Amino acid sequence: MVMAHKVVVVGGGFGGLRAVQPLRRAPVEVTLIDRRNFHLFQPLTYQVATGALGPSEVAYPLREIFSRSPNVRVMLAEVEDFDLDRRTVKLGESSGVDAPADIAYDTLVVAAGSSYSYFGHEEFARYALEVKTLESAESVRSRLLSAFESAENAELPDELNPDLTFVIVGAGPTGVEMSGQIAELARETLRHDFRRINPKRARVILVDGVDRILTSFPPSLSAKATRSLERLGVDVRLDHMVTDVDATGVTTTTSDGEQQRIDSHNVVWAAGVTASPLAKRLAELSGAAVDKNGRLVTEPDLSLPGHPEVFAIGDMVQVRDHSGEVKPLPGLAPVAIQQGHHVARVIKRRLQDQGSVPFRYHDKGNVATIGKGRAIVDVHGLRLSGLPAWMIWLVVHIWYLVGFRNRVLVLLQWSISFFTSGRGSRLIEAIPATDTASAVPPAE
Amino acid sequence: MVMAHKVVVVGGGFGGLRAVQPLRRAPVEVTLIDRRNFHLFQPLTYQVATGALGPSEVAYPLREIFSRSPNVRVMLAEVEDFDLDRRTVKLGESSGVDAPADIAYDTLVVAAGSSYSYFGHEEFARYALEVKTLESAESVRSRLLSAFESAENAELPDELNPDLTFVIVGAGPTGVEMSGQIAELARETLRHDFRRINPKRARVILVDGVDRILTSFPPSLSAKATRSLERLGVDVRLDHMVTDVDATGVTTTTSDGEQQRIDSHNVVWAAGVTASPLAKRLAELSGAAVDKNGRLVTEPDLSLPGHPEVFAIGDMVQVRDHSGEVKPLPGLAPVAIQQGHHVARVIKRRLQDQGSVPFRYHDKGNVATIGKGRAIVDVHGLRLSGLPAWMIWLVVHIWYLVGFRNRVLVLLQWSISFFTSGRGSRLIEAIPATDTASAVPPAE
Repeated sequence: MVMAHKVVVVGGGFGGLRAVQPLRRAPVEVTLIDRRNFHLFQPLTYQVATGALGPSEVAYPLREIFSRSPNVRVMLAEVEDFDLDRRTVKLGESSGVDAPADIAYDTLVVAAGSSYSYFGHEEFARYALEVKTLESAESVRSRLLSAFESAENAELPDELNPDLTFVIVGAGPTGVEMSGQIAELARETLRHDFRRINPKRARVILVDGVDRILTSFPPSLSAKATRSLERLGVDVRLDHMVTDVDATGVTTTTSDGEQQRIDSHNVVWAAGVTASPLAKRLAELSGAAVDKNGRLVTEPDLSLPGHPEVFAIGDMVQVRDHSGEVKPLPGLAPVAIQQGHHVARVIKRRLQDQGSVPFRYHDKGNVATIGKGRAIVDVHGLRLSGLPAWMIWLVVHIWYLVGFRNRVLVLLQWSISFFTSGRGSRLIEAIPATDTASAVPPAE
Repeated sequence: MVMAHKVVVVGGGFGGLRAVQPLRRAPVEVTLIDRRNFHLFQPLTYQVATGALGPSEVAYPLREIFSRSPNVRVMLAEVEDFDLDRRTVKLGESSGVDAPADIAYDTLVVAAGSSYSYFGHEEFARYALEVKTLESAESVRSRLLSAFESAENAELPDELNPDLTFVIVGAGPTGVEMSGQIAELARETLRHDFRRINPKRARVILVDGVDRILTSFPPSLSAKATRSLERLGVDVRLDHMVTDVDATGVTTTTSDGEQQRIDSHNVVWAAGVTASPLAKRLAELSGAAVDKNGRLVTEPDLSLPGHPEVFAIGDMVQVRDHSGEVKPLPGLAPVAIQQGHHVARVIKRRLQDQGSVPFRYHDKGNVATIGKGRAIVDVHGLRLSGLPAWMIWLVVHIWYLVGFRNRVLVLLQWSISFFTSGRGSRLIEAIPATDTASAVPPAE
């Protein structure tokens, strides 16, 4: 038996998945390791957090994706460390599942993603919810819906009730989407559901230290998105840096040093991200640099300095060019997808004794949604907003969803919601930790 | 302002829901209290446990059902006790949501359901999983799927691996359905998904002390169902009473006293049930009798002895007739539904100064499914099996599902699964307790 070239891929997110897919018919043996049994479509996780979609509609079993690919083995395990000399991956305690200690590789691809960071205030995570993982999104869902239930049973005026005040920290795509969704939940979905409170009087406040929302878009589209949010009833507070988060609310500080307090029991964090600790570990082992967000700086072909057989991709890395300069790439799915494809291509080239090639990102454009029928699109100078932009947003997201079943179900859910303002998955489920979502381990 | 007649309904299951629905246009003020924010379609919860359906497809928000009924108030709270003299319901700590302490009623309807009992061995609950609540069904799903993952990482031969041995205790409808679903999961859904283990070699063992499965059906249909199960690869062991359950498996004892040990990490309990503790409490307060399963014995019109203004319905009660005799009714949805309707009718009659009427159960027939295309139906002597029976089972279940969206989604999921053998919701999610589902509070 000929020993096939062993490729180990760590992480089944956008990067890892797209690195494995082109290798299905290549003369390699692939082991895809993830601590979860599913690929999560993270751009829609926020819809789980507001009950618009169910968890299984944005997650797809990794095994099913590769069930007909005999050269791909999926392994449910957690990667703890690497031995670059012996060329092995060390596995840790993996969610209660027995696993061998080491996995040998000829080529290693690390695509371990990122998690939220709290500007050096990790204690904020105790009080702020986030929508990075599937379980944390379900925690947010339970929290948001419980807030209305709690308010219904209480005796406070709606405007003063911290249960009916929702603070979203971070005016990037996720923060904007969450704000819009919560506003729609309160003003449309729940409109007729309560007898004592008026859900329309819920306050939805989006705060960020920047001077406009969605800074990756041109200012004109930011302005349109802001107006859309405000029409939905969202209170957009820019130049408001969050300087404290505790059990009763948040404190913001403006650039003039003015402090404001917002009493709220519902704080959703959608601000800074930090790379997986595996980025730092790879840097330590190889002498590579890490940037201020903990991201590993790779060679132009996405390999590790001094280790052409090791690649790192996705939002745990930044890429330097041949001059050594790092042109920052956004932490978005298209970047990870293209990097995954690139690595698969380099691996296949090397099997044919061809050299490596540098990675080049093709920016296909930028799209963000604010709410039903509201979105902005920027494709190489073509700027759209409103319903046409929203249709593009919808098609792009259905297109990139993995699996026929999920595409059909999501399209059906959205169609029903579009006409009824209903939400298909408004369940309050028992969640382990009550005051925080961070008890749930971050996904790879 | 005229004080409307106050009806308080405890429990939003089949009985409670159907008691409230006919009162939507009656001159009453209804408060529906449940500790969950959703109505659970319990007959399909087992499909959540095997990943065939997602949680939100079998659960529907109570508020949404009554959003357009201004005289119905839904309250998320837990009922702890009653004061029959002062006519109030006492609320307890209700899942973190503030609630007033007491709710006054003119008429009270208690429909608090049942939970599994363990033949006096409550310690079995630590090791056995069950599918009574939505969260417990999700725990089962995570456990079943993790079992295959764990086996894939282990070095044991499949046949000896306790991770690949599934024991289902109880040969009633739930036990039979779970056995069939697990067999289909292993033999069809997961067929191509693993590289080291062969999921087809998983052992699915259905055990019960009785001498045939589905005893509520005629023996000829039981025999057909047994053959269907065996064709799916289920090992049906009758006259095997479970006498011990621990972390490593179960012990069964036959009527001859012969003991057998089955090593298994996956024990699903679907045997005896016991009524909600509220049944016993109502009995204490009123002097009513309780049967051996903790069920309250009501008057012929479903009221509490000496308290015509208090009704108890569903699988927490049995009904005596005028001679004092109790004709046992099965703990099934149709019984609870008819009792709910009956109570609403009596309430409306009384508002018009008409007297009460006794409850009469109309048995519309019995249906159970074994697997895809396999079911048995017994309707007043008409006995069907196979595909025709399965079509009837399917139509009945879609019909009784609450909500247009859920009907469409479930039908779509089943249609896709029928042709692909896939399952739409195969997620392993982080679950609070690892060795038991009983850490999750039982639903009302």
